[in-house]
Amino acid sequence: MSDVAGPEIQRLIELLAKLPGLGPRSARRVALQLIKKRDVLMTPLADALTRAAEAIKTCSECGNLDVNDPCKICTAPGRDAGLICVVEDVGDLWALERAHAFSGRYHILGGVLSALDGVRPDDLNIAKLIERANREETREVILALNATVDGAATSHFLSDRLKDAGVEISSIARGVPVGGELDYLDDGTLAAALKSRRPS
Amino acid sequence: MSDVAGPEIQRLIELLAKLPGLGPRSARRVALQLIKKRDVLMTPLADALTRAAEAIKTCSECGNLDVNDPCKICTAPGRDAGLICVVEDVGDLWALERAHAFSGRYHILGGVLSALDGVRPDDLNIAKLIERANREETREVILALNATVDGAATSHFLSDRLKDAGVEISSIARGVPVGGELDYLDDGTLAAALKSRRPS
Repeated sequence: MSDVAGPEIQRLIELLAKLPGLGPRSARRVALQLIKKRDVLMTPLADALTRAAEAIKTCSECGNLDVNDPCKICTAPGRDAGLICVVEDVGDLWALERAHAFSGRYHILGGVLSALDGVRPDDLNIAKLIERANREETREVILALNATVDGAATSHFLSDRLKDAGVEISSIARGVPVGGELDYLDDGTLAAALKSRRPS
Repeated sequence: MSDVAGPEIQRLIELLAKLPGLGPRSARRVALQLIKKRDVLMTPLADALTRAAEAIKTCSECGNLDVNDPCKICTAPGRDAGLICVVEDVGDLWALERAHAFSGRYHILGGVLSALDGVRPDDLNIAKLIERANREETREVILALNATVDGAATSHFLSDRLKDAGVEISSIARGVPVGGELDYLDDGTLAAALKSRRPS
């Protein structure tokens, strides 16, 4: 490859292959497409990347990624500062925002505790969460970590650490997803859905 | 989305979603990964794109993409200038080069004739191919277009246009791919493999 098209293309393919979901083959396809559409795709993408790399910061309050610090969500006057929704990752924040289901603020944990991956409490954005939970204005901390073993263990750990802050602590519900068919759901979800049943 | 993370991220996601194989969801995932790995991935990728966009040209001889014009393959002293392998796309040239199976030169057609997509002979890099075939040095033109209906029609068209050039015209073989099982192959391939059988 490298002796066919030169180091510029080779370097581009190597970097593209590091992106999630792309392997060497799809990276080649993407690189080729980019080179062919130099003016409408490649140059704009290079500019967008440069601009984003320069402008985007991590919010010192919640850990969100934004061009402002504190971020737009932490400074939005319309959002309830008394509610803090704890998520693993910025992608989870985006997902919740797309659902338009939450109007409080967020806290990005930056991962979950994991003995296997060697993620310890100090590696996560926990100290800042405790500090925020202890503020006068904070009424409730909603734990919205992923429904994995590590997510559940981290939720448990956080509940324990937050219990002295004098705030309500809750977790998002587990159950049958909208449109989900019981026949295709795993036992754990069915058990959780039954346990959390509500009068209708 | 756009009111969560600002127009910089939104623009990046929109451009990434235009890449082949990426949709809106995977573009978001890629964008997030890029932003998180600003120093090791985002900035290098921006630089690689900028550099490639500036440096890479289309070879005026064969249509290949390279930083030199004529390209490295057209100017390589070790390659047989008497053999021209016609391919649809630069990706096909890369595939053949990876196979280390050909030591002649290439000609990138830039697509195939297609009534459905409105691709006519003038849209393809055919005039230059005729010119190259008519040169003293050229002995053989190998048609290596994809084994699709449009590819076959284009091969037929090219054979017709090249017959006055006084060069040998050949097509790459169709048959059972290496490791292929007869049971899983389509009828067309099996028929072609039988028809092109060779004494063993």
